[in-house]
Amino acid sequence: MIFRQVYDHTSSTYTYIMASGHGREGLIIDPVKELADTYLTIIEQLDLKLVRAIDTHTHADHVTALGDLREQTGCQTYMGKYSKADCVSVYVDEDEIIDADGIKLRAIYTPGHTNESFSFLIEDGGPTMVFTGDVLLIRGSGRTDFQGGDPHKSYDSIVNKLFTLNDETLVYPAHDYKGWTASSIGEEKRFNTRLAGKSEAEYVDIMNKLNLPDPKLMDEAIPANLACGNIRQAS
Amino acid sequence: MIFRQVYDHTSSTYTYIMASGHGREGLIIDPVKELADTYLTIIEQLDLKLVRAIDTHTHADHVTALGDLREQTGCQTYMGKYSKADCVSVYVDEDEIIDADGIKLRAIYTPGHTNESFSFLIEDGGPTMVFTGDVLLIRGSGRTDFQGGDPHKSYDSIVNKLFTLNDETLVYPAHDYKGWTASSIGEEKRFNTRLAGKSEAEYVDIMNKLNLPDPKLMDEAIPANLACGNIRQAS
Repeated sequence: MIFRQVYDHTSSTYTYIMASGHGREGLIIDPVKELADTYLTIIEQLDLKLVRAIDTHTHADHVTALGDLREQTGCQTYMGKYSKADCVSVYVDEDEIIDADGIKLRAIYTPGHTNESFSFLIEDGGPTMVFTGDVLLIRGSGRTDFQGGDPHKSYDSIVNKLFTLNDETLVYPAHDYKGWTASSIGEEKRFNTRLAGKSEAEYVDIMNKLNLPDPKLMDEAIPANLACGNIRQAS
Repeated sequence: MIFRQVYDHTSSTYTYIMASGHGREGLIIDPVKELADTYLTIIEQLDLKLVRAIDTHTHADHVTALGDLREQTGCQTYMGKYSKADCVSVYVDEDEIIDADGIKLRAIYTPGHTNESFSFLIEDGGPTMVFTGDVLLIRGSGRTDFQGGDPHKSYDSIVNKLFTLNDETLVYPAHDYKGWTASSIGEEKRFNTRLAGKSEAEYVDIMNKLNLPDPKLMDEAIPANLACGNIRQAS
């Protein structure tokens, strides 16, 4: 299996490129508009054909490359069924499978950071991996104060869905700000500072008191992402 | 196998923590002094015991955590046999194996970036991986203009040693500045802009014309690293 994690220094976003082998169809998760050419270079040099581009949710801190990648490669674009983005080829529902030549992603509805966030699980062909977008971060979790965010739903998605996965499942989030590149479900259950040993009420209280400033790019990114990264169309 | 790559935002350094499983002995490659506590947290949370800390070479752009990690954990410290650092437990030679509870690193002498650089190869227990320090970077190579650097030796190390490894071998360097986290020998043979299709003379010419400024931390880092990161001792 080919697996490449790419880090965007500007937005601290992790993007994932995967395929079952060279010369095969590949997919990408949470691509950043400014790095579209970088991903296409990597995909070309790995001798892949991009067929699926997936956003876990409508990002508020960067603009998606979904539209650009679809335009340049003809790939299909995917988001969860509650997404309001208007240029998505396929809106996936709970337990649906996105298959790229043997790489199978199972969609898991994990609202809380936004009301339309999905996570994606790979169970076959190597270590089990889950791509959690912003709902579960490494030793943290995504804010819950806009775009239908809800700390109760975040707790439910993490504790009652993601934490029921095998402890060895590797966790690959859409962001990390400290340079950590991966975690596991077992680690997050035991060491996530917002969740380990906390009740739902305690978690909700923590999230409600974060008082974070709006993301710098929020006013630009959300409308642009609803148009799959086409900034002119969104303005 | 447990494998964690940690990124230092200040020096763009990648550090690697590995072990054959939870509850086992682990090792670390190219740790950065300022992140020593971060590594120890990760190691503790992964339920590992740190027994080996390895520097691929005497870094000029950051201070090593080898001394701090040895002091805090009692781990053994490793560098190649030509290192002049004074607090190394074991100086390894070509083809020697560093073993941490089943994770076996084979030392490969790869001078060029510095005259004492080694790479380390893992061949058992999963995908083949090589940790190349600064001699081979992703689509680049480490500068060759100080600390015994030599573009002829760099070319020889990369082309006649590293490029003889299997094309599928994953390449994990000590740095990347673009957010790429891994490569493979096959990719670097075909797409490394300094090496692909270039003769030794052309490579040497490219390296001799880089005209890079000295690393910001060079005057502090090299003497500190010769004392395994003990800055006061070095000053």
